[in-house]
Amino acid sequence: MAGTKCIITGVPGVGKTTVITEALKRLEEAGRPYAYLSFGSFMFEVAAKKGLVKNRDEMRLLGKDDQRQLQQEAAGEIARIDGDVIVDTHASVKTPKGYLPGLPEWVLEALRPDLFVLIETDEDQILGRRFGDPSRIRDLDTYGALRSHQSFNRAIAAAYAMKTGCTVAIVTNADHLLDRAVDQLVTLLS
Amino acid sequence: MAGTKCIITGVPGVGKTTVITEALKRLEEAGRPYAYLSFGSFMFEVAAKKGLVKNRDEMRLLGKDDQRQLQQEAAGEIARIDGDVIVDTHASVKTPKGYLPGLPEWVLEALRPDLFVLIETDEDQILGRRFGDPSRIRDLDTYGALRSHQSFNRAIAAAYAMKTGCTVAIVTNADHLLDRAVDQLVTLLS
Amino acid sequence: MAGTKCIITGVPGVGKTTVITEALKRLEEAGRPYAYLSFGSFMFEVAAKKGLVKNRDEMRLLGKDDQRQLQQEAAGEIARIDGDVIVDTHASVKTPKGYLPGLPEWVLEALRPDLFVLIETDEDQILGRRFGDPSRIRDLDTYGALRSHQSFNRAIAAAYAMKTGCTVAIVTNADHLLDRAVDQLVTLLS
Repeated sequence: MAGTKCIITGVPGVGKTTVITEALKRLEEAGRPYAYLSFGSFMFEVAAKKGLVKNRDEMRLLGKDDQRQLQQEAAGEIARIDGDVIVDTHASVKTPKGYLPGLPEWVLEALRPDLFVLIETDEDQILGRRFGDPSRIRDLDTYGALRSHQSFNRAIAAAYAMKTGCTVAIVTNADHLLDRAVDQLVTLLS
Repeated sequence: MAGTKCIITGVPGVGKTTVITEALKRLEEAGRPYAYLSFGSFMFEVAAKKGLVKNRDEMRLLGKDDQRQLQQEAAGEIARIDGDVIVDTHASVKTPKGYLPGLPEWVLEALRPDLFVLIETDEDQILGRRFGDPSRIRDLDTYGALRSHQSFNRAIAAAYAMKTGCTVAIVTNADHLLDRAVDQLVTLLS
Repeated sequence: MAGTKCIITGVPGVGKTTVITEALKRLEEAGRPYAYLSFGSFMFEVAAKKGLVKNRDEMRLLGKDDQRQLQQEAAGEIARIDGDVIVDTHASVKTPKGYLPGLPEWVLEALRPDLFVLIETDEDQILGRRFGDPSRIRDLDTYGALRSHQSFNRAIAAAYAMKTGCTVAIVTNADHLLDRAVDQLVTLLS
């Protein structure tokens, strides 16, 4: 469909939502509005519409094949949106079984993104932000674990680019420099 | 088929076999036995059954297309095993022509792994272990070459995850801490 | 087709052309000549033959689908060349929208490379070389940006290997050691 499909990712605590929210405002003001959606929430809506689940907790209980089909349907619906869309999701999710790819092949094939953004910053800054956020107390990774996660995300982003031909851009959201991160993202989306 | 298909990898000298052997014992004791097979040996058995080769040395002499078909058949047979299976192989093999992927696309498509494990440790520890193992005298890499190899393995593991949706877990097998590596692997496989 | 298809890449300023030119000479002398082509120029020729463009500047103006089809046709033609071929291209290109993959899936599927080479060196050496080359004044990256680019190239090379089964070799073209880089490349291609 016409329009840019942009995937934006970042590890918990990097400030992804803040950067996206500010960038969306500026793009709207500049006459280039983007639709915004979270891939997880969108998948839940698709599942609820199909009567597969009643609440978000039930999403985890779905079998592997159901999950996969839901992912595919949600991605396909996003691809059919006519216009510019930001999809908020994760390059990979850290689970007890290891890094789970946020965009396995079947999602990429249905979604056909144009641009993949990694929002990153120094690991110690992320640790500091998580420490100050009581809702993220369970995410208290070590420096090394976070470094490994961000590095894995870059590697899997490269695989996403091979698969789709999308570009991969890195936006740094450093302490005290939110404006620069927003500027970078706005430039990428303009 | 029912059952978890888990691929376990690690560069020569990292202690992969030791960690797997101990983990298999504990899983057996805990009532969660895994079948174990080495991908290379399994491929040889498939080739021998088909009359393509008489001994393992002849495996190297097979043409590219024959190799590929063997890989695919072996992977397909493993996928059809009913139950939990550990597949012992390499993320990539260091050859005179560069890093050879252990699980190219056609193997992944046939095998459909659920979990991909990288057993790693600091490069100096691997060098130390190789140095003490006369059978690995040919593997005397430099620190930088080993670092590059382990890093390449992480990157290709990310591509494997994109392709299959499997999770990628890293198990550190540090000197004097074998028990922790085994614990980590048992947890992943439980 | 018979023959080795080898892709050679490296960031601007790493000395890719110099290393390839010297290696081609030695291979010719050794009775193992390779055809050489630049993927970008080859694509332009295909486009010009089809009447899609009149000069190289018009290549950038082509739509996404036209670009993709051109890439695919060019890759297919290269694959059909009977004999050994070196394809000079980029693992990824740094653009204002991020890293653009040089060999997205559809190119790899048509091209079927046997060997993928990354020519690399320390970032400070590349900066030095770019600084001394007035034609590359626009490429004045920072050390960190170059490091990130070379690292992304290794990651995407791993994805290329997963997709095609090709090996990935790293050739270091360090200051004052051009001969060693050429030796390495000649060995890979012999």
